Amino acid sequence: MFRHRIKVRYAETDQMGVVHHSVYAVYFEEARVAYMEHLGFPYHRMEEEGILLPLLELHVRFRKPARFGDTLEVEVKPYVKGARLFVDYAVFRDGEILAEGTTVHAFTDPSLRPMRPPERIRKLFSQTPLSAD
Amino acid sequence: MFRHRIKVRYAETDQMGVVHHSVYAVYFEEARVAYMEHLGFPYHRMEEEGILLPLLELHVRFRKPARFGDTLEVEVKPYVKGARLFVDYAVFRDGEILAEGTTVHAFTDPSLRPMRPPERIRKLFSQTPLSAD
Amino acid sequence: MFRHRIKVRYAETDQMGVVHHSVYAVYFEEARVAYMEHLGFPYHRMEEEGILLPLLELHVRFRKPARFGDTLEVEVKPYVKGARLFVDYAVFRDGEILAEGTTVHAFTDPSLRPMRPPERIRKLFSQTPLSAD
Amino acid sequence: MFRHRIKVRYAETDQMGVVHHSVYAVYFEEARVAYMEHLGFPYHRMEEEGILLPLLELHVRFRKPARFGDTLEVEVKPYVKGARLFVDYAVFRDGEILAEGTTVHAFTDPSLRPMRPPERIRKLFSQTPLSAD
Repeated sequence: MFRHRIKVRYAETDQMGVVHHSVYAVYFEEARVAYMEHLGFPYHRMEEEGILLPLLELHVRFRKPARFGDTLEVEVKPYVKGARLFVDYAVFRDGEILAEGTTVHAFTDPSLRPMRPPERIRKLFSQTPLSAD
Repeated sequence: MFRHRIKVRYAETDQMGVVHHSVYAVYFEEARVAYMEHLGFPYHRMEEEGILLPLLELHVRFRKPARFGDTLEVEVKPYVKGARLFVDYAVFRDGEILAEGTTVHAFTDPSLRPMRPPERIRKLFSQTPLSAD
Repeated sequence: MFRHRIKVRYAETDQMGVVHHSVYAVYFEEARVAYMEHLGFPYHRMEEEGILLPLLELHVRFRKPARFGDTLEVEVKPYVKGARLFVDYAVFRDGEILAEGTTVHAFTDPSLRPMRPPERIRKLFSQTPLSAD
Repeated sequence: MFRHRIKVRYAETDQMGVVHHSVYAVYFEEARVAYMEHLGFPYHRMEEEGILLPLLELHVRFRKPARFGDTLEVEVKPYVKGARLFVDYAVFRDGEILAEGTTVHAFTDPSLRPMRPPERIRKLFSQTPLSAD
């Protein structure tokens, strides 16, 4: 299972003293990008090849607040269905789950028109990486 | 139906040339806060009275990208179920829907312990404001 | 003197209970963009014409913290020197100054190569708008 | 010389295709926080002891744009003068300088009143760490 480590930034907290909820989408994205790099196919290379992954849906469930100084681990599980990429996430601190979520992406060309992903990209997201970050 | 107007900031765009998806949670929040002010019970006053509204869930569906220079209108429809506040949102540009979503909130005390909302706050979120922003 | 009004967002606060300092650069930018729109030459039109304004320098002096719920007014005073645009800002709340700053911009083409600004753009930034936002 | 490594996030880019200038203040802060942790006195512990470091001034000079996918190194050099903390930063990519800057901080108590830093904190910021991150 792939896990990506993120250290909570001061700027990510709000006056409630916890990480602002909008930041989790950024954590998910960072973990997704790290995952692709881990697979040997960095996101910026995919963009350079003319394949974009704009978001169709974002879902987050918040269980416990993250705080400044926390080291988080974000688990990433992608799967492809048709012309869409689904990615499940779970955010942990010291083994305790803080949040979980899903993003749904379209595969598109640079002008944001939907396209079916090339076979090697379908395969890429179907493999289960064994090692962790 | 309450609608809150937001002008897209340059800093909110990403290298895809569109508003980054994480920003919609911030738009939703700004619209929610504007709605409460419109109801005559500003969010900061609620916090001062010891009632917080931390997020339990965030759901967003992205239909069309928003861009720098756009003037958006965010529609806000709250409702209370038990100890939870649900708020539905729809984001429009020139009458066309760009995104929609829902946030689910707990009512909590300042130490983030769940509490049932006072009756006047339940009522507040049940009224339908007639005028627009 | 041009002043642009900004309402502080919840997401812009940090755990110190005040607006995070990084946000002032975003406020400055929003005010700068509003100023250009006020002049009748919106920033996105300038970008469409192939003129970008990347930042060379950012300077901010923080005097008093801004807080969630505050309505701020950002004063904008631009001037051109050679191939550079200077913009001075002052942030007020109820007439009291909270912060002030300066941004220095290059005029560049879309590939970020420096260029001298066309005469009408030099003139644009030299006029003093009489009305306020 | 202390250097802290940061990977550029997608969300930090803007439609110019580069890291938005407001993000450098966040990078500086992350590097400053990492530096304090490196010194054995994490920032959150300082806050817990009732010492805050609100910003008085922020200065950034941008030389070359950073881009999504870049690995940056932020050099941090702090020094104390009277009741103020000065920190100099330089941002590198593959040994090439992209930006540099300075933050000036007040030492304050939790209600943001200025205070002189305890002697051990003065000393802390005067030592030069030999090892790198």
